[in-house]
Amino acid sequence: MFTGTDKIHEECAVFGTSVRAAEAAGITYNALLALQHRGQEGCGIAASIDNTIHCIKDRGLVGEVFSGDVLNSLPASTAAIGHCRYSTTGVNSVCNVQPFVTEYLTGRIATAHNGNITNARDLRDGLKSFGAHFDATSDSEVMSTLIALYAVRENDVRAGVIKAANYLRGAFSVVVLCGDGRLIAFRDPDGFRPLCIGRNRLGVAVASESCALDSCGFVFERDIAPGEVVVIENGEVTSSEVVLKNRTPGNGFCIFEYVYFSRPDSVVDGLPVYDARFNMGLRLASEHPVEADIVCGVPDSGLEAAAGFSAGSGIPLVQGFVKNRYIGRSFIYPSQMQRENAVRLKLNPLKSNLAGKRVVLVDDSIVRGTTCAKIVRTLKSAGAKEVHFRISSPPFKHTCHYGTDIDSENNLIANRLSVDGICREIGADSLGYISVEGLKAACGRCNLDFCVKCFAGGETLSNQKNDLE
Amino acid sequence: MFTGTDKIHEECAVFGTSVRAAEAAGITYNALLALQHRGQEGCGIAASIDNTIHCIKDRGLVGEVFSGDVLNSLPASTAAIGHCRYSTTGVNSVCNVQPFVTEYLTGRIATAHNGNITNARDLRDGLKSFGAHFDATSDSEVMSTLIALYAVRENDVRAGVIKAANYLRGAFSVVVLCGDGRLIAFRDPDGFRPLCIGRNRLGVAVASESCALDSCGFVFERDIAPGEVVVIENGEVTSSEVVLKNRTPGNGFCIFEYVYFSRPDSVVDGLPVYDARFNMGLRLASEHPVEADIVCGVPDSGLEAAAGFSAGSGIPLVQGFVKNRYIGRSFIYPSQMQRENAVRLKLNPLKSNLAGKRVVLVDDSIVRGTTCAKIVRTLKSAGAKEVHFRISSPPFKHTCHYGTDIDSENNLIANRLSVDGICREIGADSLGYISVEGLKAACGRCNLDFCVKCFAGGETLSNQKNDLE
Amino acid sequence: MFTGTDKIHEECAVFGTSVRAAEAAGITYNALLALQHRGQEGCGIAASIDNTIHCIKDRGLVGEVFSGDVLNSLPASTAAIGHCRYSTTGVNSVCNVQPFVTEYLTGRIATAHNGNITNARDLRDGLKSFGAHFDATSDSEVMSTLIALYAVRENDVRAGVIKAANYLRGAFSVVVLCGDGRLIAFRDPDGFRPLCIGRNRLGVAVASESCALDSCGFVFERDIAPGEVVVIENGEVTSSEVVLKNRTPGNGFCIFEYVYFSRPDSVVDGLPVYDARFNMGLRLASEHPVEADIVCGVPDSGLEAAAGFSAGSGIPLVQGFVKNRYIGRSFIYPSQMQRENAVRLKLNPLKSNLAGKRVVLVDDSIVRGTTCAKIVRTLKSAGAKEVHFRISSPPFKHTCHYGTDIDSENNLIANRLSVDGICREIGADSLGYISVEGLKAACGRCNLDFCVKCFAGGETLSNQKNDLE
Amino acid sequence: MFTGTDKIHEECAVFGTSVRAAEAAGITYNALLALQHRGQEGCGIAASIDNTIHCIKDRGLVGEVFSGDVLNSLPASTAAIGHCRYSTTGVNSVCNVQPFVTEYLTGRIATAHNGNITNARDLRDGLKSFGAHFDATSDSEVMSTLIALYAVRENDVRAGVIKAANYLRGAFSVVVLCGDGRLIAFRDPDGFRPLCIGRNRLGVAVASESCALDSCGFVFERDIAPGEVVVIENGEVTSSEVVLKNRTPGNGFCIFEYVYFSRPDSVVDGLPVYDARFNMGLRLASEHPVEADIVCGVPDSGLEAAAGFSAGSGIPLVQGFVKNRYIGRSFIYPSQMQRENAVRLKLNPLKSNLAGKRVVLVDDSIVRGTTCAKIVRTLKSAGAKEVHFRISSPPFKHTCHYGTDIDSENNLIANRLSVDGICREIGADSLGYISVEGLKAACGRCNLDFCVKCFAGGETLSNQKNDLE
Repeated sequence: MFTGTDKIHEECAVFGTSVRAAEAAGITYNALLALQHRGQEGCGIAASIDNTIHCIKDRGLVGEVFSGDVLNSLPASTAAIGHCRYSTTGVNSVCNVQPFVTEYLTGRIATAHNGNITNARDLRDGLKSFGAHFDATSDSEVMSTLIALYAVRENDVRAGVIKAANYLRGAFSVVVLCGDGRLIAFRDPDGFRPLCIGRNRLGVAVASESCALDSCGFVFERDIAPGEVVVIENGEVTSSEVVLKNRTPGNGFCIFEYVYFSRPDSVVDGLPVYDARFNMGLRLASEHPVEADIVCGVPDSGLEAAAGFSAGSGIPLVQGFVKNRYIGRSFIYPSQMQRENAVRLKLNPLKSNLAGKRVVLVDDSIVRGTTCAKIVRTLKSAGAKEVHFRISSPPFKHTCHYGTDIDSENNLIANRLSVDGICREIGADSLGYISVEGLKAACGRCNLDFCVKCFAGGETLSNQKNDLE
Repeated sequence: MFTGTDKIHEECAVFGTSVRAAEAAGITYNALLALQHRGQEGCGIAASIDNTIHCIKDRGLVGEVFSGDVLNSLPASTAAIGHCRYSTTGVNSVCNVQPFVTEYLTGRIATAHNGNITNARDLRDGLKSFGAHFDATSDSEVMSTLIALYAVRENDVRAGVIKAANYLRGAFSVVVLCGDGRLIAFRDPDGFRPLCIGRNRLGVAVASESCALDSCGFVFERDIAPGEVVVIENGEVTSSEVVLKNRTPGNGFCIFEYVYFSRPDSVVDGLPVYDARFNMGLRLASEHPVEADIVCGVPDSGLEAAAGFSAGSGIPLVQGFVKNRYIGRSFIYPSQMQRENAVRLKLNPLKSNLAGKRVVLVDDSIVRGTTCAKIVRTLKSAGAKEVHFRISSPPFKHTCHYGTDIDSENNLIANRLSVDGICREIGADSLGYISVEGLKAACGRCNLDFCVKCFAGGETLSNQKNDLE
Repeated sequence: MFTGTDKIHEECAVFGTSVRAAEAAGITYNALLALQHRGQEGCGIAASIDNTIHCIKDRGLVGEVFSGDVLNSLPASTAAIGHCRYSTTGVNSVCNVQPFVTEYLTGRIATAHNGNITNARDLRDGLKSFGAHFDATSDSEVMSTLIALYAVRENDVRAGVIKAANYLRGAFSVVVLCGDGRLIAFRDPDGFRPLCIGRNRLGVAVASESCALDSCGFVFERDIAPGEVVVIENGEVTSSEVVLKNRTPGNGFCIFEYVYFSRPDSVVDGLPVYDARFNMGLRLASEHPVEADIVCGVPDSGLEAAAGFSAGSGIPLVQGFVKNRYIGRSFIYPSQMQRENAVRLKLNPLKSNLAGKRVVLVDDSIVRGTTCAKIVRTLKSAGAKEVHFRISSPPFKHTCHYGTDIDSENNLIANRLSVDGICREIGADSLGYISVEGLKAACGRCNLDFCVKCFAGGETLSNQKNDLE
Repeated sequence: MFTGTDKIHEECAVFGTSVRAAEAAGITYNALLALQHRGQEGCGIAASIDNTIHCIKDRGLVGEVFSGDVLNSLPASTAAIGHCRYSTTGVNSVCNVQPFVTEYLTGRIATAHNGNITNARDLRDGLKSFGAHFDATSDSEVMSTLIALYAVRENDVRAGVIKAANYLRGAFSVVVLCGDGRLIAFRDPDGFRPLCIGRNRLGVAVASESCALDSCGFVFERDIAPGEVVVIENGEVTSSEVVLKNRTPGNGFCIFEYVYFSRPDSVVDGLPVYDARFNMGLRLASEHPVEADIVCGVPDSGLEAAAGFSAGSGIPLVQGFVKNRYIGRSFIYPSQMQRENAVRLKLNPLKSNLAGKRVVLVDDSIVRGTTCAKIVRTLKSAGAKEVHFRISSPPFKHTCHYGTDIDSENNLIANRLSVDGICREIGADSLGYISVEGLKAACGRCNLDFCVKCFAGGETLSNQKNDLE
């Protein structure tokens, strides 16, 4: 799929690096370019020097925020962190963009995180009763304050991070930059969001996805484990330990990272995202076989699974559409004569490949269903005889508390209609969703526990409070 | 390929529409979005109303120039033309952006063209001796002045266009909008640049490529023939005739439109561009067979030919790279630790698909060769055992007088080195270019004469002058 | 007075320089800063080098258009011209901004003018019948074309300028830059708009007002005479002759230049504008004496005449208001509680100077009268016992064909009401306008014929046509 | 004087209003326009509604930050505060712009202040030891945190403000907006910076200067007393009490507010600023009499004192310069031929008023002296026979800890040279500074204690700490 409104979003990307070369900010800038797919609304970079931290952040794409001489106005530093953010609301929300710089009794830290702290409200109130005040409205400020509080109490940032992290509930992959140049990265015990580490001859980097390591000249080494806290100093890992251990049954790695969020050239827990998607296509072919002439993927999110479906079914893979790469966020004129086929401005079918063909159309998910219906109509008007829709994730039915930005459940077509109903509504000749088991199996080469609650449901958030001590 | 500097460019796109609905400007805006790949430096729209012509044009992408309420400031018109321009030079070149509006003795016209007038200098001088003056430095102003001159002399715009067009030499696909709403489209007799026509229940549109017709709700009808002049009034074609007949042997449709310039979903002379590129791949497979494990295309320009090579050779087609869709024109930080693999920020190889494989890598052309060398190194460092480069156009050696923006011949690697030399320089294990005959054959389903002078060479421009009468 | 809508405007400023130092463009930039009061909507600079002319122009203030490196992108030239423009209409009017660059049979010229060509429509049509075409809608293009036409016919730019100028009717102070670096300046035979010349050890400059010469290090020498054509080459005047001689009785120097348009530090025909305004105040004091305690000027346009009134009447001059220098074109929030005294955001009365005082309030003119009424109310609410309004120009009643941008005559309060009626409507205790004779006398130290048709009326434009030959 | 670099600056302006009309944000916007002279680098407005506070702030002028629909994006509120800030440092300092919004245990407040907290560093450290963390680097955050801390401890915002204010040292005129719409204003016990209050039928406003009250339709009532805390609810003052009483001998109202910072139409402690400056001129005339022909003020800062000097000496007041109102922050081209008189682009002398005259030139202060020297030279080159410089403040010699942004003492010419030495350096024929006693006497109609340490010197800051309790 391809529209802003008819697509699921995850919130953020983080990156951090400590190198024996005074170009940490520049490296972080390149890394954010590589992670831009995870968040396009705002971004920022913080760099440490001489026990201070300089931070530049704003709304806009990485290339926009750091255009001209802006990047150069950051110091020549050996340690830096960066962040891309998905959605910002409100005119002045620039103060909500990350990284967040915090000055406290014994130092300065900058933090950036990916995920959703489910007990942020409680922690906020708890911290207020400790005397904390808050300027912004984001979870990041809560996390920073918590870390600062315990960094003081424990008289050490690493110890403070561990103490603070034990109070956090939900999904969090976090990088912390200290004024002294230390870089600390940690990940929630359930491992919802990805976080990995790489190195080269000059230092170390951590990133939400391995594609950022590749793009910046680091060699991917391994994922940071769920619950692990890693400390990096002067380009070396000086400590790494799994210290957050209270896993919650049913929680785990967000399987949507494999399905859609991550870039296909990233690798998670040893499994390339490309391979996971290809496997989903293979599995779909066996779960929902169909007689057809060609297999097409919806660009760009369905292309890998389509390749897998083709391999699994023996039906040839064919390019079905040309995607317009220039529309971006441009306004589209609502011409009356075009209402039927406005989708063709974004995705134009390749008639000569489709005419008279029975088409298997593969995409990663159906959210509201409106775009799918238009795509099916477009294919048929381009001459497709049949359109068999195959989806590389199970029916999407439930709200997520851990960072996925989904519509109200009421807007989720899979919540309103059965699979047959959806098939009729979008006008497809058949519709097949991969099963939850099938999806897990497709990702089976890795050893992760998965969170699949958006498909399978699960308990709501506990009301249990953790009083700060 | 993918960089700005290491790629051939063609200059422009044109579009025009006459409809029985007051939304011609909006339709033109959508069409320019669909044609943006042909020119990203500037754009403009002219709309006629009440015997006047309103025109908005500026440097920037279509979505940038017509952001906010700018589109609405054009009148609710039933006829409009638009233009996307490739390169502008100089700070204030906004006055060179098209369309060009000209007021003359008996009316007003706006013109937009794609191509290169080879006798523009002569015509300019000729017109000056008729008393004409010029404000801008572009061919468009010469063309407009010429049309205006003869529109007066012939006492009719259509007659004036024909008379003027007979003086023009070179490549030109032109749309002319008259103050009274008439739309005239014409194409040089050699048919260098594409131009096609479509219609729907409300009117008619002409466009550089059929993808713009698809995207705006028009049904592609046919190409405008080389030398044809079409007049459209009130949403109907009122006249269409091939009146420009002095073809030049050796000239013809620029075959690079099939190779690279046009969008794969466009159709030229009945041959879908996708199919042409697929055929080039088929042909390459037979001209330059190789034992290999996988075929990859360089995104996005080599993907279709790679599919053809796979089909022709039986070697499986595999995705070799992930292209970063967000870099655009962003500055890239020149990190010292990344110099080796900076290309991976734009094109990251999919290691799990490549490791240990003998790879056939397909792209559309090699200009300077620098980027190719980096891509080959990147593939090898991702584990590819062998890299066999296959190019879906012949060695690119010669300057073009008809609109293709090529480097000085000195910078063209094929001018400096033999195929073997190039192969060594880019570090490939083998290198094969399609032959000129093979390329023509791949496009053989259409009946066009082709211009292949950039590969094969040809006479230089004649110095023959045509004095204006 | 002070509001955009309640003020008369004149259209433009011109400047040109030829110096033996490659900094003509920079000097012109500084000069335009000094002339910005004559036009704030757009501006441009053209500089010649190597027989070409480079031109940068855009909407906006001088400091905005030439911000950053824009000025540097002009060549290091020894000759340049510049222009500030008052009003632009329409979104894409940037092509109407001056200077206008014209390429013609035997050369290139750039032109910039101040004034209004009254037979522009006729000339345009005449030129069209010679085959000319037009891109923009401004008089400047007509003038350029005309000059280019005769530059060719006379085989010399200076001769062409003279020939062309003889066809022009109306008000025009013009600078022409030739590709070869020659600078030609000329002024209509009636001398409506100012134009003066200065020099220093390195060269010569011409400017709409002498304040620009002062500001750029030139020593003011003299006004260019009505009808004079001056040629400057390599920093020297090589020719200067009064060649345009067909003066029209009743026409002459626009007396509003002395009243309001020009900067008080400029000198016209030997009479400093400051002195002229001071004299107007003196004269007002004798024409409309009144018993009062203090004299105040309305900032900034009434300050000099107020000083004169004080000197003439012996009533002390006191600062009555503080003007907010930061509002510029900012939006003002229409608070309900402020409607009465919104004017105080722009002009706040100095209560301690005004309380209990009988005030003579001096301003340069009354256009619609709405602002005057607010100012009088504001003064009274600040404690003024009486407000006696004195105006340093006669009642403004008539449309101007020569460049002054006035409201429809219907909106001119002096057209609707008698002086007594105006006095009642604006709530003043008395109102006195200077007489036409008094105004002329105040400017009597110069020997100019004046145009006073906006006060006294006069024939409408003749319909007489001058056919081009 | 007139240049950015050769002028003293004070940091800020504050405004707050509580009205029975939902237009508090709009009124605040207008008020900031009226206070823009106190700070041009950034500004912000916070408005309360439904126990929340919305805040918009950014770098730029008031009219720039709140252009377009930005003002409308604030809620229709009955209470708001605003701030203009002088200097910001660093690219991303937007988070340092005020108002500052703080969320704490029992509520939300926004604060804006004018002045300088001299013990901010200590308070910051003290608060950190209470567990506070800080995001920005400004005093405002310290103040907000302190207020929030004690608002919780005292269980009431007003009580918290009082408690907090007792810990603050230095200069502070502060407005606090509570989420519930209460507005609290307070001023340090020494009364360094101005703060006044006004009302109309719909409510109450507090402002740094009375000119903002005038401009927004409020009637100035009185100054808020040094040490006074005022609470305003629903458009009524519900409490006002002088609670901060620990005055420091030698501290007091910054006399530079009368000399230069405040707008002449503002009134402080019953003394109009205009009158104070006029008195300074009177006093200067008796302290430093001179035989001369005319008196001129340097626009705009010397004009009122010049009027006083003229009245005191009987020497006629004459306009000496025309100030260019359009240069603002525009770049000026450094033409070689203009280096001598670049100042004339900003201030052009009126030759006809000056030629052959002995001139008394009045300005408010001399900082570095470089501009003064240029002005004297310019006057002489305009024909002035003698230039007698008179300064309406004593020699400026010392650093200020209370908010005035002065150069390093090394750059202050009065620190390097005697009065005679300065006179020689700037090329004046005589130089006279008002005495400290004379300055105080000129402001004698008010009963304020003054701080004159920038002229007279004084102890350095005590190192005494106040531990927070």
